[in-house]
Amino acid sequence: MNDDIAARALVERVTSSPGYTSAVGTQVALVERGSVHLRLARRPDLLQFNGHFHGGVIAGLADHAAGAAVTTALPPGRIAVTVDLHVNYLSPASGEAIVAKARAVRMGASICVASVEVMTTADGQEQLAAIATATLRAVDLPPLQPG
Amino acid sequence: MNDDIAARALVERVTSSPGYTSAVGTQVALVERGSVHLRLARRPDLLQFNGHFHGGVIAGLADHAAGAAVTTALPPGRIAVTVDLHVNYLSPASGEAIVAKARAVRMGASICVASVEVMTTADGQEQLAAIATATLRAVDLPPLQPG
Amino acid sequence: MNDDIAARALVERVTSSPGYTSAVGTQVALVERGSVHLRLARRPDLLQFNGHFHGGVIAGLADHAAGAAVTTALPPGRIAVTVDLHVNYLSPASGEAIVAKARAVRMGASICVASVEVMTTADGQEQLAAIATATLRAVDLPPLQPG
Amino acid sequence: MNDDIAARALVERVTSSPGYTSAVGTQVALVERGSVHLRLARRPDLLQFNGHFHGGVIAGLADHAAGAAVTTALPPGRIAVTVDLHVNYLSPASGEAIVAKARAVRMGASICVASVEVMTTADGQEQLAAIATATLRAVDLPPLQPG
Repeated sequence: MNDDIAARALVERVTSSPGYTSAVGTQVALVERGSVHLRLARRPDLLQFNGHFHGGVIAGLADHAAGAAVTTALPPGRIAVTVDLHVNYLSPASGEAIVAKARAVRMGASICVASVEVMTTADGQEQLAAIATATLRAVDLPPLQPG
Repeated sequence: MNDDIAARALVERVTSSPGYTSAVGTQVALVERGSVHLRLARRPDLLQFNGHFHGGVIAGLADHAAGAAVTTALPPGRIAVTVDLHVNYLSPASGEAIVAKARAVRMGASICVASVEVMTTADGQEQLAAIATATLRAVDLPPLQPG
Repeated sequence: MNDDIAARALVERVTSSPGYTSAVGTQVALVERGSVHLRLARRPDLLQFNGHFHGGVIAGLADHAAGAAVTTALPPGRIAVTVDLHVNYLSPASGEAIVAKARAVRMGASICVASVEVMTTADGQEQLAAIATATLRAVDLPPLQPG
Repeated sequence: MNDDIAARALVERVTSSPGYTSAVGTQVALVERGSVHLRLARRPDLLQFNGHFHGGVIAGLADHAAGAAVTTALPPGRIAVTVDLHVNYLSPASGEAIVAKARAVRMGASICVASVEVMTTADGQEQLAAIATATLRAVDLPPLQPG
C-alpha cells in the first residue's frame, strides 16, 4: 500500500467514524498529499432559517478539510488537530452542495497552516461561498474504532 | 410585550426553526440585550473521533450565539448575519455539554462585533474550551416560518 | 485619465501621505483593478530583536495592501477601511525586503474581503512569509492633503 | 531577583532593543505574570491619512503585548513568538495614545493564546479601539544584545 492510498484510507476512516462528520454526510471527494476536498449535500438539518447552509456547517467542513489536508502531509502515525480557525463568509451558500477544498500551506515541526476555499454548486456552476484559514498542530494518532 | 421579551422570543424562534440549530438541539440559556448564552448537550452525532465535541459544532454554536447577542441589541425588524468568525480552540470540549456565552462588543450602523466564550461542563465544573470573535452586519429580518 | 491611472494615483497618494506608510518607506510596486503589491525594504527600525521583520510591520503592510486592492475596485470617491485583519506568520521574514500582494476576493455593497500573500526576498528567491485576510468596508474618501 | 522582576526586566529589554518596538516609542506600562500593558504616544509617523493610529501600528502593539504577556508566564529561557494574529478594529484610535492590554488565556506545552484589548485615551477617557487574539508558540530565547 503506497502513501497516497494510506492517506486516503486514513481520511476516509476518520471522516466515516461515528460522530459529527459522518452524521452530516461528509463525502471525501479528493485526497492528495497536502490537499483534500470534502463535500456535503444539501439537507434540511444543515441549513439556517433562510435556507442557506448554516455558518457552523461551513466552518465544520472547512475545519475537517483543513485537518485532513495537513494530516496527509504528516508522517504516518500523526494527525493534525485545529488550534484556530478563521472563516470569511463571502456569499450565501445556497446551492445543492458545498465543497471545501483545503491545501496545506505550511508544514512545520509543530505548527501547520491550511487554506480552504468553500464552493457552493448551483445549476452546475461553482461559486466561492467562503474562505478559511486554519492553524493546526500535529499529535500522535489515537486509536480509531475499527472501520 | 417589552423589548427583552421580544428579543428572547426572536432568539427562541430563530433557534428552534427547522434547520441546523434545532437539529443539533440548541437550547437558549440566557437572553439579555447584547448578551446570549446557548447550550448544546453531548450527543454522539456532535463529537469527533476522539470523543470531544467537533470543532465545527463549537464554531456553529459560537456563531449562532454571536448572531443572537448582536440581534438583541439591534432595532426591531433587523437581524445580524456573520461576516467572519475566528475561533481559538483552547482545550478539548469533552464535557457533558458546551455553552457559548456571547456578548456584543461593538454595535455600529453597518458593522457589529461579538466576543464569545465557549465553556464545557464536566463534573459540575466549567472550563474554557474556546474563545471566538465574530464580525457581523445587520440586515432586514426575513419572514420566519410560523413558530 | 483612465480608471487605472486614477487608481494608481490614489494608491500612491494615500501611501505617500505624511504618516505611517510613508515613514516606513512603503513602495507601490503594482496597482491593477482589485490587486495591489506593496514593498518595504529592510531597515533596522522595522525589525524585531532577532533580525526578522516585526510582525506588526508585516501586518501593517498586509493591511495597507488589502485596503488599496479593494479601493481600486470601488467606485470613485470611495475608500476601503479595515474592519478586521487575520495574519498567519508562516516563516521568518528575514530577507532584504517584504512584498505584500493583495487581491480583492469579494466586493459587496457594504463589505469587501481581500486576501494577501506576504513574500520575503532573499538571494533573489521569493518565499512565502505570511498570509492574511482582511474584511473591509467602503466609506466616502475624506479629503487628502495635497500630494 | 524574583520572578516578577525578572519578567519585567525581560519585557523591558526585548521592547527597548534596537528595532521596531523601540523605534515607535513603545512604553512598558505594566508587567505581571500573564499580563502586559504597552503604550504608544501619538506621533505623526504612526498615523494614517485621516489622523488616526494606523491599523498596522495597532496590530504591532497588540502583537508585541501578546507575546510579552505569554512570555512572562513561560519558564525562564523561553520566549513566545506569534503564530497568528486576529485584530478587530472597533473604533477610530484617534486619542493621544493607545494602550494594548494583553493577558494569556491559554498556556500549553507548545501552543499559547493571548487576548488583547487596545484602548485609546482622549480627554482622559479610555475607549476600546480594537480587540485582538494571538496564537503563539514558545521557543528558546535567543541571545539579546546587551541592554
